Amino acid sequence: MVKSPDTSRIRGVLSPVVTPFDSELRPDGERLIRHCRWLLEQGVGLAVFGTNSEANSMSLAEKRALLDELVTAGLPPHRMMPGTGCCAFTDTAELTRHAMQLGCAGVLMLPPFYYKGVSDEGLFRSYAEVIERVGDSRLRIYLYHIPPVSHVPLSLSLIERLLKAYPGAIAGIKDSSGDWNNTRAMLEQFQSPQFDVFAGSEAFLLATLRGGGAGCITAAANVNPGPIVRLARSWQQPDADAQQVALNSVRGVFQQFPMIPALKAAIAHYSDDPIWATVRPPLVELDSAQRNALQQALRSVDFSMPGVGA
Amino acid sequence: MVKSPDTSRIRGVLSPVVTPFDSELRPDGERLIRHCRWLLEQGVGLAVFGTNSEANSMSLAEKRALLDELVTAGLPPHRMMPGTGCCAFTDTAELTRHAMQLGCAGVLMLPPFYYKGVSDEGLFRSYAEVIERVGDSRLRIYLYHIPPVSHVPLSLSLIERLLKAYPGAIAGIKDSSGDWNNTRAMLEQFQSPQFDVFAGSEAFLLATLRGGGAGCITAAANVNPGPIVRLARSWQQPDADAQQVALNSVRGVFQQFPMIPALKAAIAHYSDDPIWATVRPPLVELDSAQRNALQQALRSVDFSMPGVGA
Repeated sequence: MVKSPDTSRIRGVLSPVVTPFDSELRPDGERLIRHCRWLLEQGVGLAVFGTNSEANSMSLAEKRALLDELVTAGLPPHRMMPGTGCCAFTDTAELTRHAMQLGCAGVLMLPPFYYKGVSDEGLFRSYAEVIERVGDSRLRIYLYHIPPVSHVPLSLSLIERLLKAYPGAIAGIKDSSGDWNNTRAMLEQFQSPQFDVFAGSEAFLLATLRGGGAGCITAAANVNPGPIVRLARSWQQPDADAQQVALNSVRGVFQQFPMIPALKAAIAHYSDDPIWATVRPPLVELDSAQRNALQQALRSVDFSMPGVGA
Repeated sequence: MVKSPDTSRIRGVLSPVVTPFDSELRPDGERLIRHCRWLLEQGVGLAVFGTNSEANSMSLAEKRALLDELVTAGLPPHRMMPGTGCCAFTDTAELTRHAMQLGCAGVLMLPPFYYKGVSDEGLFRSYAEVIERVGDSRLRIYLYHIPPVSHVPLSLSLIERLLKAYPGAIAGIKDSSGDWNNTRAMLEQFQSPQFDVFAGSEAFLLATLRGGGAGCITAAANVNPGPIVRLARSWQQPDADAQQVALNSVRGVFQQFPMIPALKAAIAHYSDDPIWATVRPPLVELDSAQRNALQQALRSVDFSMPGVGA
């Protein structure tokens, strides 16, 4: 199945853009803009404020200000899908409304994630409350299913109920369950050009596209954007499986380390800009032994980041 | 072991005060003030913005405003221990600073709870960052260990390291692990009049006081304050074990239902004020069958809430 060519929708490869911090741990808008430009040039959409952006280590005000900075700098909002899901629906509604007013293509929305064991009814009400409060017909919500981190899963029956109630606003999902059977079930159950399924990692990119999905939103696109986009664009070519294998080998290197510090360490190294390694607590940057091991492992898979930081 | 009579410290029984919402789901300051007064009259301290307060379903601005409202209404800040732990340390620092400026006895601080599997080093830095940024010598942080909800446990070695680095600011802990062995380990390892261990439930109140602990911070104090405070004040009397058994039977009733909706349903019923039953999503209020079952079960244990809502 091939998706309808609705070019107003954001599809393909997106990156939860890592957020640079300065030595005082403040978000660094200038470096973020530079990194976003580098990603855009390679065809990667901007899922700023994702899990790998340390979004939940930033305040609402910091996120609002950063988003303003990106748009003011001329980055195209129709290539942005900011994460807006907070614990409190009031925060989620505020950030979502702001993103839509700026013209973003959509928003990636975590469920409220503090309370555990909540019912589908409660999660339905959470999303419904935000949709009603934002009250914007342009609203496109991409649900964010990431049970290993949120510990608040989004069931297929919840998605179905949301789609029925809000067929315009519920525009798709990012499946970061890490479970291909779950992604496949979503692809099979929600076959609509109005509902886009994104894999949560490029490891499932080829399978997702073959199953009628829209692409992937993946941390690794921060460091390996070109090859991931190439597969997304040429997945029907004979070398697609070989491309997927090559993507997996790079991913495998990063997975040997804590992902976010490793992504930032790679950007710091290849752009020769050490401040990029900074993370906010509760994360911890790689130590020098880890950095050396990462660099060595990346050399072994012929990894490079042409043009990063320029 | 009996704690030194440092009357400047908040001890005994505290309640994570449930937060009333109006029909538009806005925090209802007036009803909150009334409920806080009722709790104070019975000797219960105000751990506003705890888990059972739905604190993480409220924005930073909403919490700041509510705290201001309580203090402006004349409620005594030295009887308050607001919860201030957010996902972002910038938010945690802001709310903590505000609470200390208002003269609160201390703050109850969750670790950042979005990212899972974080290291003790990362958690240490999270607390250190807040302490350094608040920079207030009056600061008293009560660590909040609630792994069933936060999924971010606080290890004994982390506590020890924090206590060594910040002996003044780290004032105690609330142990909501539900694991008495863990509470006992804390009581044994951190025997200092400057570090108060609170049980996370009145089910462990007697054991905690016998072990040298400071009291308990418990959801049930919202509905059963008198008897819980009586045990805290008379735990050395011969009938203490019988008192504990009676507390447990009331607690057992509430535990048959989702706790927060059940607490609010009880307040709504006994104060004849139905709006009290309102919860914010992702929580869902009890349905009528659950409400009836709760009321029947409470009658069977001779439960009452004298004076609530007056």
